[in-house]
Amino acid sequence: MVKVLINGYGSIGKRVADAVAMQKDMEVLGVTKTKPDFEARLAVEKGYKLYAAIPERKPLFEEKGIEIEGTIFDVIEEADIVVDCTPGGVGKDNLKMYKEYKVKAILQGGEKAQYVEDNFNALWSYDRCYGKDYIRVVSCNTTGLCRILYAINSVTDIVKVRAVLVRRGADPNDVKKGPINGIVPNPPTLPSHHGPDVVSVIPELEGKIFTSAVVVPTTLMHMHIIMVETTGTTRDNIIESIEKTPRIITVSAEEGLNSTAAIIEFARDLGRMRYDLNEIAVWEESINVVDNEVFLMQAIHQESDVIPENIDCIRSMLEMVDDKMKSIEMTNKAMGLLK
Amino acid sequence: MVKVLINGYGSIGKRVADAVAMQKDMEVLGVTKTKPDFEARLAVEKGYKLYAAIPERKPLFEEKGIEIEGTIFDVIEEADIVVDCTPGGVGKDNLKMYKEYKVKAILQGGEKAQYVEDNFNALWSYDRCYGKDYIRVVSCNTTGLCRILYAINSVTDIVKVRAVLVRRGADPNDVKKGPINGIVPNPPTLPSHHGPDVVSVIPELEGKIFTSAVVVPTTLMHMHIIMVETTGTTRDNIIESIEKTPRIITVSAEEGLNSTAAIIEFARDLGRMRYDLNEIAVWEESINVVDNEVFLMQAIHQESDVIPENIDCIRSMLEMVDDKMKSIEMTNKAMGLLK
Amino acid sequence: MVKVLINGYGSIGKRVADAVAMQKDMEVLGVTKTKPDFEARLAVEKGYKLYAAIPERKPLFEEKGIEIEGTIFDVIEEADIVVDCTPGGVGKDNLKMYKEYKVKAILQGGEKAQYVEDNFNALWSYDRCYGKDYIRVVSCNTTGLCRILYAINSVTDIVKVRAVLVRRGADPNDVKKGPINGIVPNPPTLPSHHGPDVVSVIPELEGKIFTSAVVVPTTLMHMHIIMVETTGTTRDNIIESIEKTPRIITVSAEEGLNSTAAIIEFARDLGRMRYDLNEIAVWEESINVVDNEVFLMQAIHQESDVIPENIDCIRSMLEMVDDKMKSIEMTNKAMGLLK
Amino acid sequence: MVKVLINGYGSIGKRVADAVAMQKDMEVLGVTKTKPDFEARLAVEKGYKLYAAIPERKPLFEEKGIEIEGTIFDVIEEADIVVDCTPGGVGKDNLKMYKEYKVKAILQGGEKAQYVEDNFNALWSYDRCYGKDYIRVVSCNTTGLCRILYAINSVTDIVKVRAVLVRRGADPNDVKKGPINGIVPNPPTLPSHHGPDVVSVIPELEGKIFTSAVVVPTTLMHMHIIMVETTGTTRDNIIESIEKTPRIITVSAEEGLNSTAAIIEFARDLGRMRYDLNEIAVWEESINVVDNEVFLMQAIHQESDVIPENIDCIRSMLEMVDDKMKSIEMTNKAMGLLK
Ligand SMILES: NC(=O)c1ccc[n+]([C@@H]2O[C@H](COP(=O)([O-])OP(=O)(O)OC[C@H]3O[C@@H](n4cnc5c(N)ncnc54)[C@H](O)[C@@H]3O)[C@@H](O)[C@H]2O)c1
Ligand SMILES: NC(=O)c1ccc[n+]([C@@H]2O[C@H](COP(=O)([O-])OP(=O)(O)OC[C@H]3O[C@@H](n4cnc5c(N)ncnc54)[C@H](O)[C@@H]3O)[C@@H](O)[C@H]2O)c1
Ligand SMILES: NC(=O)c1ccc[n+]([C@@H]2O[C@H](COP(=O)([O-])OP(=O)(O)OC[C@H]3O[C@@H](n4cnc5c(N)ncnc54)[C@H](O)[C@@H]3O)[C@@H](O)[C@H]2O)c1
Ligand SMILES: NC(=O)c1ccc[n+]([C@@H]2O[C@H](COP(=O)([O-])OP(=O)(O)OC[C@H]3O[C@@H](n4cnc5c(N)ncnc54)[C@H](O)[C@@H]3O)[C@@H](O)[C@H]2O)c1
Repeated sequence: MVKVLINGYGSIGKRVADAVAMQKDMEVLGVTKTKPDFEARLAVEKGYKLYAAIPERKPLFEEKGIEIEGTIFDVIEEADIVVDCTPGGVGKDNLKMYKEYKVKAILQGGEKAQYVEDNFNALWSYDRCYGKDYIRVVSCNTTGLCRILYAINSVTDIVKVRAVLVRRGADPNDVKKGPINGIVPNPPTLPSHHGPDVVSVIPELEGKIFTSAVVVPTTLMHMHIIMVETTGTTRDNIIESIEKTPRIITVSAEEGLNSTAAIIEFARDLGRMRYDLNEIAVWEESINVVDNEVFLMQAIHQESDVIPENIDCIRSMLEMVDDKMKSIEMTNKAMGLLK
Repeated sequence: MVKVLINGYGSIGKRVADAVAMQKDMEVLGVTKTKPDFEARLAVEKGYKLYAAIPERKPLFEEKGIEIEGTIFDVIEEADIVVDCTPGGVGKDNLKMYKEYKVKAILQGGEKAQYVEDNFNALWSYDRCYGKDYIRVVSCNTTGLCRILYAINSVTDIVKVRAVLVRRGADPNDVKKGPINGIVPNPPTLPSHHGPDVVSVIPELEGKIFTSAVVVPTTLMHMHIIMVETTGTTRDNIIESIEKTPRIITVSAEEGLNSTAAIIEFARDLGRMRYDLNEIAVWEESINVVDNEVFLMQAIHQESDVIPENIDCIRSMLEMVDDKMKSIEMTNKAMGLLK
Repeated sequence: MVKVLINGYGSIGKRVADAVAMQKDMEVLGVTKTKPDFEARLAVEKGYKLYAAIPERKPLFEEKGIEIEGTIFDVIEEADIVVDCTPGGVGKDNLKMYKEYKVKAILQGGEKAQYVEDNFNALWSYDRCYGKDYIRVVSCNTTGLCRILYAINSVTDIVKVRAVLVRRGADPNDVKKGPINGIVPNPPTLPSHHGPDVVSVIPELEGKIFTSAVVVPTTLMHMHIIMVETTGTTRDNIIESIEKTPRIITVSAEEGLNSTAAIIEFARDLGRMRYDLNEIAVWEESINVVDNEVFLMQAIHQESDVIPENIDCIRSMLEMVDDKMKSIEMTNKAMGLLK
Repeated sequence: MVKVLINGYGSIGKRVADAVAMQKDMEVLGVTKTKPDFEARLAVEKGYKLYAAIPERKPLFEEKGIEIEGTIFDVIEEADIVVDCTPGGVGKDNLKMYKEYKVKAILQGGEKAQYVEDNFNALWSYDRCYGKDYIRVVSCNTTGLCRILYAINSVTDIVKVRAVLVRRGADPNDVKKGPINGIVPNPPTLPSHHGPDVVSVIPELEGKIFTSAVVVPTTLMHMHIIMVETTGTTRDNIIESIEKTPRIITVSAEEGLNSTAAIIEFARDLGRMRYDLNEIAVWEESINVVDNEVFLMQAIHQESDVIPENIDCIRSMLEMVDDKMKSIEMTNKAMGLLK
């Protein structure tokens, strides 16, 4: 049983912890928190061992009556790998500690590509990351782009990708961030940095992907409008390839799944924990091929699509399973994904 | 095993179905749908027998490949009780059918009080509704008000209630309804109809309750600001009484539960199906008593607080359990409520 | 002085009325209303003659003490032209009346292209519409696309247009419509109908324009992400051409105009009536040319960009000014546009 | 002509500048900015002399080609009074400078009451502030409460005030702040600090006013639900008194003014600069008196209601007009208020 320490128990961290706990070949060694809030209390109630991420804050947990095992330094040496789920920018600073303690570590998409050995998406770079020490699981948006491009690339050659990202303003529990009413070009320069981020996973797209992004007042999901020029394909080919690609589902607006809100309702009705939809949802009606260019729209549940990727990344870095498709299948089955 | 037919499988209906299925003393006879949408498909996948609410629409389900057992008229006579969860106003029209088929029926809060024999809240009117045929489970807001007033009334006498309801504009999956940006006095007349609705459950509050309501651009929860003049009490008394009252919990802003969004995050982290928080959440910090007047703020998960009430209402109307507290306990345990 | 009757005094109608009143060569004959609301009251206070659009509702205005001159049938024969600003779909029905009374009429973008002789954008089809009787001023989105494509087309040849429209959910004063929280692919099929709508103005783009659209929870402005393959151009050429094109301005995110909300703030600070920004706003930072493909982002004030077009359309249909650029200049000057 | 320096040219500052410029007995000496953004550019275009609020930032303006006269220290000695419109908390720090330069100063509602000599509302404390040196114009919410309480107090005695404030989350141009979807009890403790803030203006309400506040996802206006126990009054008395009180108007939901969004539409249609509604808007339908308790709902345009108060405050502090009603009338007329 591989021992996984989760550093930073927020939106991503708590999901990674639960996903690790569901796997047969790994276990949660502990989770770290910086504040004695309700998430800390629930972590302990779930049975996770809790450690103070910032040593001097340990007493705060005790004052609140939240059971705390120690600080991160009391546990880090036992870990086979740390999944760093701290806020963007912090992970990079933590790398020094991981290196000092000679523990492998996964960073998340809020960090820059340059600080790690390689960038992970299960479909594209499982093999490249095999046995490596410091790897970044790319962001929710990049993960969504990589998956759909994998499906398309499986049946045709990609000539040029244009993608527009309509991003959620904040996660659902974050009431501090806006916008309340307005659309924010973010960044206002074109193309956006999301294209190069995809290239960090799929180098062959260098110079072939152009992205732009706006932020809008919603919390539920991102949405992508995707246009991919290819050397030749058909709508049926694309649908069939999506059908075969793990972690992408198609949804039908006509059956009522006609907004990101309806897709979340679907995930709620499925009984998904925290309504997580780890799969990318592509609108069936939107899929079209005109002049060999693939058009489609997809919705990305930003809080959860990267979670199964983190699990596969652990297996790859710790050389636990050598076939990416086998790892994907193990993860999906343990987490109860649709496919 | 009592047989329950759910007529109208929308936000409330699907939850009532799942809650009935969780009880040991009742079962879901079937559910009705008007449209062959994703909710219909999931109902069948869950194992519920599906019937067309509108007979002529039955073929639509077949066209979509959704297994349908027949129409409501094929099953209604087998039902011990129908829980009508159709949109506001439709339930009243359905009463004629229920009476014709001599089946007991529960209507929901979107219907007016005048059409039924009595109005149900488990704490206040379980006994009054015992054995009756046509009962209304009051709305989400009224249910929330009744619960907190029960807690207050348990330790002191209520002199006057003032309550302001800050209401969610639409349920999360309803993208048609606004407001997007604005506050709507609804109704613009004062006092609002919510006071009389509470009186339909608690007649002794006649002339003593004054409510007002606004609608705001949020989907997650309603919020109530409550001011109750009493003959005398203390903050500790109120907290203790809330502690003892079923289906009300206290939450601490200081521990991070500082918005309706954070409360929903809490329900998600608890692993609640569809993130339902059937319990009313009262902010601990908000509870105060000044000059014998109780002040507090509470959050109401509109989609789910009435669900356990529907279960208790079934038990009361079918004379299954004669002690309200026993029914409440059975329901809560089966549904996994915190209290 | 040309006499203009405005039928339907809502968001578009009241602005058309004010814009007509500002011109030296035309006057407001009257405006019609269906309801005696605050807009009706203000119309009278402004000095517009008010007529009941629906004859049997005339007494309602009198009951409310709002001065009303008569019904539309009392005034229609005096009109040189009617600007129909009724809700989408109603304009088409009104055509019969206009034809019966032999009065020229302008319909708005909510109507379909097929019902009129041609489709108007001042830059593209002023000449085509010259002297015609029934013309449609295209929608706010189509107007925005036509303007920017005119600027691009002025310096290079357009090979293919891809545009993504991120649309406001409702106008600011419409609190009934959502979405409150969610992104709606609208339509969920690709390409969307916006491309053909542009083609109704610019036939040479047939088969060369692919649009898609989503609706988001904001009321202020639409936003377009535009990608135009050309036979060859440079960023400087495009900027220069935008500079020369009427009714498009560039804004700088770096100077604080970094969202649609900030652009509206700018219009407020300019002292614009109702904060109308009749000009399309293109983000300077967003303009880029890569491999002869122009990329840019623009914001569209849906309530007001079509207003100057309506004025020019009147001049064209009534053969008042034969040079489009002269009409544009007259309109812009009278309305105080930046350019 | 009294010389007014505006320190901090943001939402409040730019409006104060424009309002000062409209008065016959005062003029804008200059305005200060910290950043060379579009607001700075427009200030210069309007003809205001611009000074760097932070001296070392002066070159930034020059780099951007924005004409700048100097720093605040080049102009402060010429001022008869400074209206400090810096962000909450900064004003207090600036007090030292104002005292050092022996210039009178007005602080805004984001500052605490304790730092100034007294707190200003034109109706309640004009006389008390007469000739004083350091005065705070209370916040938008407190101003709204003071006005309506003045109207009520004019015809009856106030026994107890209960008020619930439903606050806008951010100003319209602020896309950084949330909430996007959620209701935030702010503060979560009851009563809120708004009551004591009213008492800073109306000391006789000490112990008699209980407020609570929530923040919601809207940018347009705050809304107040107000309940005032009195020694005796009638609905007609209250309406009549509101009629007589300056800077409060009544609006009718039935005439279409049925949300804060509709009220803003009304202000836009009135042609108000930046759609400012300096008057408080009380819903006519909401006004009710039951058991001598006055109930009503009012909407507050947070960006602008304090602006005329700042003008009157200048007159009071500089002893320019000794009758408050005369100053109010002068201000209202110059600004074009409805009353
Ligand atoms: N939320 C998303 O939508 C999303 C999606 C994909 C990737 N990511 C990335 O995942 C990472 C985490 O994001 P998140 O949304 O979970 O953030 P979060 O703010 O929800 O959680 C971060 C957690 O880290 C804790 N923390 C802060 N400083 C710490 C420190 N020095 N040491 C340990 N813990 C610390 C915080 O208390 C918090 O619990 C970021 O890189 C982010 O960009 C986020
Ligand atoms: N959603 C809430 O917040 C909430 C809370 C408490 C009470 N209620 C009340 O519960 C009732 C149901 O509300 P909801 O939110 O679940 O509505 P909903 O719209 O989500 O669901 C109603 C369902 O009834 C179906 N339906 C429509 N007409 C029908 C007919 N003639 N026969 C059978 N089914 C029909 C619809 O297809 C839909 O599936 C209403 O009275 C409402 O006021 C709703
Ligand atoms: N609002 C926008 O963003 C926008 C932008 C461009 C074009 N348009 C188009 O302009 C047209 C008007 O839209 P709007 O936004 O002004 O709508 P609106 O609803 O604001 O105004 C329509 C007005 O027409 C009145 N009306 C309704 N039925 C009528 C009838 N039978 N006869 C006369 N008047 C009637 C209504 O009372 C209302 O005052 C539509 O075709 C719309 O698609 C709207
Ligand atoms: N916006 C409202 O709704 C509102 C309503 C009533 C009162 N107020 C109060 O008015 C004051 C100003 O608020 P606002 O909304 O105008 O804020 P704002 O952020 O819109 O404007 C503040 C301005 O001050 C400038 N500034 C920052 N630091 C400065 C410094 N050290 N010296 C000079 N200028 C500086 C900023 O650049 C900005 O232009 C606050 O006290 C606030 O609480 C605001």
